[in-house]
Amino acid sequence: MSQSGSYLMNAWYVAALSQELSADTLFDRTLLDIPVVLYRRADGTPIAMLDRCPHRFAPLSMGRLEQDSVICPYHGLRFDCTGTCNHNPHGPGTISPRAKVPTYPVIERFGFIWIWLGDADADESLLPHHPTLVSGHEHAVAYTYMPRDCHYELIIDNVMDLSHVDHLHGEMITTRGQLSPQIPDVIEADGTVSVRWLWQQTPPILILNDFLPQPGEPARHFVEVTWSAPSHIQLTIGATQNGAVETLNFDTTVAQYDFHTCTPESATSTHYFFASRRNHHEEDAEFNQLKIQGMHNAFVDEDGPLLDRLQQRMGSADFFSLNPVLISSDAGPVRVRRILAERIAEEQAQDG
Amino acid sequence: MSQSGSYLMNAWYVAALSQELSADTLFDRTLLDIPVVLYRRADGTPIAMLDRCPHRFAPLSMGRLEQDSVICPYHGLRFDCTGTCNHNPHGPGTISPRAKVPTYPVIERFGFIWIWLGDADADESLLPHHPTLVSGHEHAVAYTYMPRDCHYELIIDNVMDLSHVDHLHGEMITTRGQLSPQIPDVIEADGTVSVRWLWQQTPPILILNDFLPQPGEPARHFVEVTWSAPSHIQLTIGATQNGAVETLNFDTTVAQYDFHTCTPESATSTHYFFASRRNHHEEDAEFNQLKIQGMHNAFVDEDGPLLDRLQQRMGSADFFSLNPVLISSDAGPVRVRRILAERIAEEQAQDG
Amino acid sequence: MSQSGSYLMNAWYVAALSQELSADTLFDRTLLDIPVVLYRRADGTPIAMLDRCPHRFAPLSMGRLEQDSVICPYHGLRFDCTGTCNHNPHGPGTISPRAKVPTYPVIERFGFIWIWLGDADADESLLPHHPTLVSGHEHAVAYTYMPRDCHYELIIDNVMDLSHVDHLHGEMITTRGQLSPQIPDVIEADGTVSVRWLWQQTPPILILNDFLPQPGEPARHFVEVTWSAPSHIQLTIGATQNGAVETLNFDTTVAQYDFHTCTPESATSTHYFFASRRNHHEEDAEFNQLKIQGMHNAFVDEDGPLLDRLQQRMGSADFFSLNPVLISSDAGPVRVRRILAERIAEEQAQDG
Repeated sequence: MSQSGSYLMNAWYVAALSQELSADTLFDRTLLDIPVVLYRRADGTPIAMLDRCPHRFAPLSMGRLEQDSVICPYHGLRFDCTGTCNHNPHGPGTISPRAKVPTYPVIERFGFIWIWLGDADADESLLPHHPTLVSGHEHAVAYTYMPRDCHYELIIDNVMDLSHVDHLHGEMITTRGQLSPQIPDVIEADGTVSVRWLWQQTPPILILNDFLPQPGEPARHFVEVTWSAPSHIQLTIGATQNGAVETLNFDTTVAQYDFHTCTPESATSTHYFFASRRNHHEEDAEFNQLKIQGMHNAFVDEDGPLLDRLQQRMGSADFFSLNPVLISSDAGPVRVRRILAERIAEEQAQDG
Repeated sequence: MSQSGSYLMNAWYVAALSQELSADTLFDRTLLDIPVVLYRRADGTPIAMLDRCPHRFAPLSMGRLEQDSVICPYHGLRFDCTGTCNHNPHGPGTISPRAKVPTYPVIERFGFIWIWLGDADADESLLPHHPTLVSGHEHAVAYTYMPRDCHYELIIDNVMDLSHVDHLHGEMITTRGQLSPQIPDVIEADGTVSVRWLWQQTPPILILNDFLPQPGEPARHFVEVTWSAPSHIQLTIGATQNGAVETLNFDTTVAQYDFHTCTPESATSTHYFFASRRNHHEEDAEFNQLKIQGMHNAFVDEDGPLLDRLQQRMGSADFFSLNPVLISSDAGPVRVRRILAERIAEEQAQDG
Repeated sequence: MSQSGSYLMNAWYVAALSQELSADTLFDRTLLDIPVVLYRRADGTPIAMLDRCPHRFAPLSMGRLEQDSVICPYHGLRFDCTGTCNHNPHGPGTISPRAKVPTYPVIERFGFIWIWLGDADADESLLPHHPTLVSGHEHAVAYTYMPRDCHYELIIDNVMDLSHVDHLHGEMITTRGQLSPQIPDVIEADGTVSVRWLWQQTPPILILNDFLPQPGEPARHFVEVTWSAPSHIQLTIGATQNGAVETLNFDTTVAQYDFHTCTPESATSTHYFFASRRNHHEEDAEFNQLKIQGMHNAFVDEDGPLLDRLQQRMGSADFFSLNPVLISSDAGPVRVRRILAERIAEEQAQDG
């Protein structure tokens, strides 16, 4: 099962935030147990390759960039952005045809660097599509990165079952017990799983309250989360005090459009990336920073420590092998776990 | 063998000092590799259960108490003190008959919270009986807790062979080389092992010296340690300068009545609990605190570092498999190790 | 293969620098996974034995010296410098014939304490012979110790292929790209492997520059490294501006005679010892200290972090199993790896 370090390989994962990858810098991150070095070509195009020289296995990320090539820190072998050795300063300078560093397809889009680590050809049509993140005022979208010592599926569970917000989170994003009593709609379509909640609360959720016509007064709310394999979740949350609104969505409410995605570092550690676009108070850069910091802290201070200790309680056991006592709000995350396990099993059967 | 993480399960262990368990607080401690949450009901009765929610395995100890029930921090499921779910805030609130947290029998007695982690019915008649600890002035007894990174049997060895006091300990509790030359009496009876030493030293052992009629002058001493399974040791030490005393015991000497007990956290870490009652200078609360601090420090500063490194030297090897060269003073601890190994083997054979 | 914790056992390794072993002190160090305690007899002769009491396995190094014997900290058993118990303070004082601590042959020579940990008889004729280190002014030789978290063969590779100096090292010891273009001479003879480089650079290598007749002007350089099993490397480096010199060596150039040696602590950690004798500016004690500190720092700050991360990249894999893409400058270290692997295989076949 996927709990023990087997990953869906033929898929796009986020390797880094665009803002993490600066010019002239080698950036290293372990993804799906693979050490990867990332950098930008002079024209800005991102490049990813195995962070291990084929000569004596030194980490290339400790070396330096020269034009668009990486120079190994240890003996100066130079590799172009296709991973081909284009300079060997040693002896006659002969270059072995085996002097190749594996590279990985990367695409920069929607504020993220996406990477394909599988053996199959990278399929750009599988890249998650979130143009909303990059449409609108630049001060109305922000990004953050939060590493965590737990299995990535524990973070997916967390977002796919938002009933926990009633119980775990502090004043800023509490839903005041309004989600748990509901049985949310769960819709499975085209390999995605969506969970939608509708409720009323007073005062409105505090991240939106101040932008409603009557702060502090009752408001109708919705939140919808949609997972797609392997570990991407789009979440939209909105509130309205306009009784005439029939369809609550990002355009008809005071709302934000978020993107949560997890990339396993290892079986027990995860790179968690988060982006948030809002449709209100769009031009305030300082508010934008405060808001992303608040969302960052909610996970770091509230969900994170719980998930780390939950991981310790589970150890290396598979989730279902522990016989969880499931409740109504688990419908979404359990559906996701089963689909992901099937997808991984299929992929491994094909490789086998 | 017991060296490698197999424990005697059907027995009472100390889970905590009474003073560690305050009202309105969830207390977590791993005992015999089992994560346990402990708390007190409103009437003070201690409760112990597995520190893992049966829903998604969150640590209950990160949640909160409501009346006598525990509320899971993650999704708000509530469990009464029998471990039965008595509230599910989700959807229709249906409660699965499987929504049960294993609980463990606990008894509070003699200043300790005792726990029974075995599968067999808890047998209260097996609870160690030490009323002396709680008889007498409240300022003449004190308790402490000392965690340590070594196997619990190394601590039992340490107390069952007090000849090490001649060699390892500093001025405050040194026995000045008087124990080692002796072959102590070792008595096995009803599953217990007792070791008794009698000697004279000048000056008397410093923890008792000031309370003797003639401090600094020769005194007759005794110490007796009695082990009972799995890891409980009662130690009485006394000194007298009254030549007429025929039987040296707690009542006839300037003495203290101690209780040492170990609860394995894991195969290489131990919760070590200690209590000490004295029959002299009984009303001085400040002295009481200084005295327990001194005993605490003797173990923490002198025995502890040696036992941790000894553990590293032994690694995961069984004690007897390393062919120890035994000497006369080992009679007690070796007898204890053999009985305990037999008891564990018997228990496992019954389970098998 | 040797990558996974199998060592050449019947060989001399350095256990410590002479200067690390002071009088009246027990010194502990784990060598080839064996915990060893080292000390000096009253006459200065070094002694080495297993750092584990045969009684209850306490580390003898936590005890104390009495004349030339070691007293166990735990129960006071005393062992002479042949490892024989010569005092048991317990009971009748009987000493079991099994009360023996394994000892290891040690020889102090050339500023090092050498140890033989193998089962075969220690063969003094195999001891590396480096009288140059101890010939000449006392202020012209210095020693240092650098522990590192990598396999010892990675450090041997590092010294046996000095082309890395072109790429990795800072201004003080840079060879300015002059080594890499060359194919060095590699000579295998009598079980040793020598690599010799000859080149010209301007300015001369800075560690020698100031002692040449015309600092900053072109100079001919040489460096020669000679490995002998298991992990000893003698390195001589020199420069000259005297055109008439035909044979560049320690006597004909401004030069230093270094000795690098590695003793595995475990499969992934190494004790690295280094000594350096120079033939110039010999009487300046302060310069001597600055110079050894500079060499120490070059390894600690430049090679060391790279080797630690390289070790992480290799994990527990054998070097050759990872299919390194070898280049011309690898001839020396690869020859060394193959000879060492053969020697270890032979030894294990004999034991088998």
